[in-house]
This record gives sequence, C-alpha cells and structure tokens, in this order.
Amino acid sequence: MANETTITIVGNLIDDPEFRFTTGGHAVVRFRVASTPRYQDRQTGEWKDGTSLFLTCTAWRDLGEHIAESLQRGMRVVVQGRLRQRTYETEPGDKRTVYELEVDEVGPSLRFATAKVTKIRSAQAADVPLHQPWPAVAA
Amino acid sequence: MANETTITIVGNLIDDPEFRFTTGGHAVVRFRVASTPRYQDRQTGEWKDGTSLFLTCTAWRDLGEHIAESLQRGMRVVVQGRLRQRTYETEPGDKRTVYELEVDEVGPSLRFATAKVTKIRSAQAADVPLHQPWPAVAA
Amino acid sequence: MANETTITIVGNLIDDPEFRFTTGGHAVVRFRVASTPRYQDRQTGEWKDGTSLFLTCTAWRDLGEHIAESLQRGMRVVVQGRLRQRTYETEPGDKRTVYELEVDEVGPSLRFATAKVTKIRSAQAADVPLHQPWPAVAA
Amino acid sequence: MANETTITIVGNLIDDPEFRFTTGGHAVVRFRVASTPRYQDRQTGEWKDGTSLFLTCTAWRDLGEHIAESLQRGMRVVVQGRLRQRTYETEPGDKRTVYELEVDEVGPSLRFATAKVTKIRSAQAADVPLHQPWPAVAA
Repeated sequence: MANETTITIVGNLIDDPEFRFTTGGHAVVRFRVASTPRYQDRQTGEWKDGTSLFLTCTAWRDLGEHIAESLQRGMRVVVQGRLRQRTYETEPGDKRTVYELEVDEVGPSLRFATAKVTKIRSAQAADVPLHQPWPAVAA
Repeated sequence: MANETTITIVGNLIDDPEFRFTTGGHAVVRFRVASTPRYQDRQTGEWKDGTSLFLTCTAWRDLGEHIAESLQRGMRVVVQGRLRQRTYETEPGDKRTVYELEVDEVGPSLRFATAKVTKIRSAQAADVPLHQPWPAVAA
Repeated sequence: MANETTITIVGNLIDDPEFRFTTGGHAVVRFRVASTPRYQDRQTGEWKDGTSLFLTCTAWRDLGEHIAESLQRGMRVVVQGRLRQRTYETEPGDKRTVYELEVDEVGPSLRFATAKVTKIRSAQAADVPLHQPWPAVAA
Repeated sequence: MANETTITIVGNLIDDPEFRFTTGGHAVVRFRVASTPRYQDRQTGEWKDGTSLFLTCTAWRDLGEHIAESLQRGMRVVVQGRLRQRTYETEPGDKRTVYELEVDEVGPSLRFATAKVTKIRSAQAADVPLHQPWPAVAA
C-alpha cells in the first residue's frame, strides 16, 4: 500500500477489547480508544481536559490475540495505524460514514504503568511482513 | 511548545535501557532503538530487510523509571516523541550533530509479544501534564 | 495544548475552499480532502486505487485567507493538523459524530505541479505563535 | 516498503534547492530545512524560539524538478517523507552517520504566503505509484 494516512493515537481503552473469529477463521479484535488533549487555562494557568477524540481500532490475527490477552478497559495505549473510512446504509436508507483505525502496532503506555513482557514465538507471525495489507475478510 | 517535529518509531531495543539520576536528582533513562524497514524483492516477491534506522531515545522521571523496570534489550517497542538535534564539539574542535528522540510515550509492541500491565498510582505523574516540556536538566 | 492527535493527510480538494467570516469577525475556511491509497494487485502486479478517505479541514485567519486565495478544487495538497471530533444532534434527536482536521499547515503538493510563491508580510501573523490554540469562535 | 519511519517536518529552506542529475540520468534535488519550535516563557508569557532542527531532504525525478522550479531559500515548507540513515567513513577512517529525509510530498506552506499553482501533466508521473520506492541510484 502507498499513500495511506498513518496516525498515532495515545489514549485509554473505554471497554475491554472485543475478540472474535471472522467467518473465514481469522482472529480479529476491536477496541475503542479515547484520547483526551490537555490545555492550559490562560487565566488560572491550570491544566484542563479538552474534548476527547474516540476512535475504533481493528487488529488482526496474532496481533489481535495478543491485544485480547494483554489489554483491558481503562488502560492507556499507544496505537499506530492507518485511518480508514467505511460507508454503510441504515435501514431507512441514510448513508453513514465511520472512521476506523487499522492497527499496525500497539503497546500499553509506560507513562503511568509498568509491563511484564512475554515474547511469543509465532511461526505464523515470523513469515508475515509487518505492515502487509491483510486479506479483506468479512469483519 | 509549538511546531515540534513529532515522530513515531517502531523497532527493537539494541541494549538494555540505561538508567541514572541527573545531578539535579531527576531520573533519566536512555535507550537505543533499531527500526528495520521491510521491502519486497520485485523479482522473487520475497520480503527482505532494508537498512536499519537507529535512534537514541531519552525519557524522564516516572516514564524513565517505568521503562527501566519494563524494557530489555531485544524487545520491540512503539515510541512517540519529538525529534531533536544536539551539537557538541570534539576534542580536536570538530562540530558533531546528534539526533535524538525526546520520548513522550512508549510501550512494548504486542505484535510478537503479550504484556502483563501494572498500573502505578503516582501522585507526581497525575499532577504533571502529559506533554509538558520538562525542565532543562544536565543530562 | 498537549496530547493532541496530529495527522498529515495528502490528497485532492474535492471542492473549492469555502471562505467566510464568523459572527465574531474571524476569517475561517473549510475544505474537503480525498486521500486515495494505492495498492499493488498481487496477481497482475498493477497499481490500483484503494478506498478513499475523506476529511473536512478547517483553517483560521491569515492561513484561511491564503488557502482561499491559493487553492482550488482538484488540487493536490499536503495538510498537517489535529484530528478532532464534534458531536451534534439531528432534528429527530439522533446523535451524530463528525471527525474534522484543525489545520496547522497546508501547502499545494509539488508532486504533479509547480507553484509560484508570494510571501505575505502580515503583522498579525508574525505576532501569533504558529500552533497556538485559536480562540473558540462560533464557526 | 513496510515499517518505514515516516515524518512530517515544517520549516524554512536554509539554501536554494540543489538540483543535478545522477550518473544514471535521474533528476535529484537536495535541500535543507530548519524547523524551529516555539515555546512560551513561563514567567513572561512571551513566545520564544527553541533549538532548531536541521534536516537534509532528497527528492527524485519530477518531484525534484518541481521543487527546483518552485522553492527558494527562506521559504517555509511542509515536507512528508521517510527518515533514513546513511553511514560513511571519513578519510582518517572514522565512521559518521547522517540522517536524511527521503521526500514523498512537499509543498510551500500557506501560513505566511500565497501560491499560484500550475498543474504539470506528466505522463511519467502518472504511471508511477506515489510512494513507490525509487530505484537505488548513485546519489
């Protein structure tokens, strides 16, 4: 893929990751991240929360499985992926557009936490190029 | 700070993080990341390693301590920070320029690993805005 | 502002920029960008268009005026900004969420074009820090 | 290419772009960008310049030609590319490492300027995918 819109978002999981298998047998995990900017009040000098940005993230296969095993609601994460758009039609026939993040890399943020990391030796993972476009499966 | 050059690098630690205290008593950790692009050979279709990019990363205070406790040589990480440049003079009087990453967020990548995350309740961390420019300390 | 989600999008304007003044007298311009990924067909080796990503961009004051004077429908642009989310209610009371890009920098891409650049000496611009959060005006 | 370190830098050209042909007959242009962060003095509230980041940028073929025709010393630009590292040996045998930006997209910033854009219809450009890795030529 070329000319994709890559993005890194830092925020907190607002739910536990939702793991399942596609009809084609691929593992897929979805999770929602809330990223809250901080700004300094000009008069008081105090730092306050800005309006949160919510983004639904999708990850496949091994990466999806590792996310489901490692991450939980409330955890702060660093997510790198490609911003995508999906359009669907509602029952009355209205068109709706959803923005989603196709995850390439994710890790629990070490800003307010520590982590005990366990390397997984996955033959499958080793054969797959890191950013390879995944097969289009029915998600 | 405004107009900083932010960057996300994904790669492997080539050494254990190096932790110490500055003369001013601030915790600081340094670690080196090697990020290796992958490209597809046009003739064989095989995926191969490109030339690695090496970047020295610096993190302060709680974040630095959490890194020192969590990360080790060889681990794959996702690092977000601001690209900076430092110029120094060698003994013979030559000028050298070093590029470094001032780390804002880092996490162990879940691509080939799982992680057991422990939240640290740090009063200090809670009071400090996430991307606040740190005091200039003798590093 | 700290911990904002910055993003760079490269794509084509799908309309002329829409320029107007807010009730508070601030210049504001809105334009829509379509960014189309390209991928290589694994069987034919041919490059094809992927699904486009559409993003509405907002720029203020001098930057907005310069955009209105310089850019037109169809032009390819490089846009850097902060991804934001706005929620509103429809007449029947449904909640809708819109993602928008708050533009910090934008330029016409030189990939398929040349540009004749005219520097504007704006006293106002010179006094304003480049990425300073703009006042919240009724847009 | 996958897992490259992409970066967007905004800054000013510190020289005119340097245009030439490689021994293989490919157009290549090099230019240097200085990006200067701005920070707010905590005591006076005044905005001041931080330490500049200098980065050498390389662009190929049509993009290189358009840059040479459009950009000049002092102009503010938005550059998106991939951060790379090159190691060479000095005469006494010391190893030096240089960081460079392989340019994918660049445009004159409209923050303090306007631009008159001329679309170039290039058959060659049209056939080439936007982010395709260029052939390794002797630069």
